[in-house]
Amino acid sequence: MSRPPGRKQENHKISRELLVLTYGALVAQLCKDYEKDEDVNTCLDRMGYGIGVRLIDDFLARSAVKKCRSYSETADMIAQVAFKMYLGVTPSVSCSSAAGNEFSLILDKNPLVDFVEELPAERASLCYCNLLCGVIRGALEMVHLAAEVTFLQDRLKGDAVTEIGITFLRKAEDRKHKRN
Amino acid sequence: MSRPPGRKQENHKISRELLVLTYGALVAQLCKDYEKDEDVNTCLDRMGYGIGVRLIDDFLARSAVKKCRSYSETADMIAQVAFKMYLGVTPSVSCSSAAGNEFSLILDKNPLVDFVEELPAERASLCYCNLLCGVIRGALEMVHLAAEVTFLQDRLKGDAVTEIGITFLRKAEDRKHKRN
Repeated sequence: MSRPPGRKQENHKISRELLVLTYGALVAQLCKDYEKDEDVNTCLDRMGYGIGVRLIDDFLARSAVKKCRSYSETADMIAQVAFKMYLGVTPSVSCSSAAGNEFSLILDKNPLVDFVEELPAERASLCYCNLLCGVIRGALEMVHLAAEVTFLQDRLKGDAVTEIGITFLRKAEDRKHKRN
Repeated sequence: MSRPPGRKQENHKISRELLVLTYGALVAQLCKDYEKDEDVNTCLDRMGYGIGVRLIDDFLARSAVKKCRSYSETADMIAQVAFKMYLGVTPSVSCSSAAGNEFSLILDKNPLVDFVEELPAERASLCYCNLLCGVIRGALEMVHLAAEVTFLQDRLKGDAVTEIGITFLRKAEDRKHKRN
């Protein structure tokens, strides 16, 4: 996860409310555009992917982090540096598989839903924050890490916490390398 | 412009790149949805209005500003406090009418277009940042100030600076009050 800084370093921090409301406008527009929740979810994930692919350069330049040496380090980096930087919160991280490639980011508070009371009854399957999954997936892909990222729990749907699951997909060459 | 703080004060500052890219995704989606630039512009302004109406409470709580006593003070407040807070930049302000109700916010750098190279040829009339006009208009309306807000210049369209024009609309009662 190391790259030379590509963009001029700046330190312009902002309050996140304009992001939160702009994101709300985006989701609302997609709900107008697509009747099925699944289509909105897919679209948010795809948009997020495009954002992650572009955001990673900014992240690497701004955070000046070193290359991660394990999936566990990578998950911590996403939670402690990336989430803090772009959403102002730090999820807790837990590893949820013996194989060491599945992690959960657990948010007690999800700032992206600050202005959302609850999902409308007819939008019960909407994954409101699905953009975040796409962002993580896109950013990871740019540092050559394939991953599946999905919401496992969502406070908007009545769960106790919001939980994002990240499953790193081991590459065939990795497995081969490990055997040798 | 004074109201009791309605929301719990927090101080979670974020880097603005996720906002900038999310906004880009919103504009791109609207360009898919509407063929005519004018329709995209109208939609962005309308969305911004809805955001401004909700953002004003956060702004008043967070900034703890006193009531503005003139249009000039209000324009300065928008530039120096609100823009700084939500976009991390401070436009310069100039008054552009003898009547004292027309102001320009001039941005040497517009962070919302950080990731935009240029407008596509077929989108020459797109007012990419039109959401901001709506936000300002909506927020002002919530403190009982009617205003017209439009882009007068835009670096994305080849102008030297980006300029947002705010015209405060004098109310009939104001005029009556002044005559007395």
